[in-house]
Amino acid sequence: MYVLIVYDVDEKKVAKVNKYLKTYLNWVQNSVFEGELTEAQLNRIMLWFKGHLDLESDSVLIYTASSQKWLSKRIIGIEKNSTDNIL
Amino acid sequence: MYVLIVYDVDEKKVAKVNKYLKTYLNWVQNSVFEGELTEAQLNRIMLWFKGHLDLESDSVLIYTASSQKWLSKRIIGIEKNSTDNIL
Repeated sequence: MYVLIVYDVDEKKVAKVNKYLKTYLNWVQNSVFEGELTEAQLNRIMLWFKGHLDLESDSVLIYTASSQKWLSKRIIGIEKNSTDNIL
Repeated sequence: MYVLIVYDVDEKKVAKVNKYLKTYLNWVQNSVFEGELTEAQLNRIMLWFKGHLDLESDSVLIYTASSQKWLSKRIIGIEKNSTDNIL
């Protein structure tokens, strides 16, 4: 399935979350990742979040579509993921 | 169509962008809005962005699905939009 993850977490956890999500997904903007995942992978990511985040103050939105074809993307301004290599 | 907008803009513009997007969409997380829009409304929003943002440094991602039914949403942690009324 195609997955879009947008997080808003305590600043101190941002680097750790980015590093973890980059093993599964493409970074597309500050705190936004997207890509293809299996249900099992998504479940693993959700478990990781539950173990590493403060569920009283951090927030993660996970949007899923059965296929990328249901989702169109337009970009205004710069494509931040073009700097992915230097992160 | 169902629209999800995620922006990463200069801090000084955040309040203005939020105020504008709230006239069309629901705020769901810091810098994330979603909701139903017509093609004409989305075009108006895109024009507004092009007129108010710095296209060399700001970034806006716009995801669209023909219907909300193609998109599922899961939330981990807090639902930030529950504070919508006090913004």
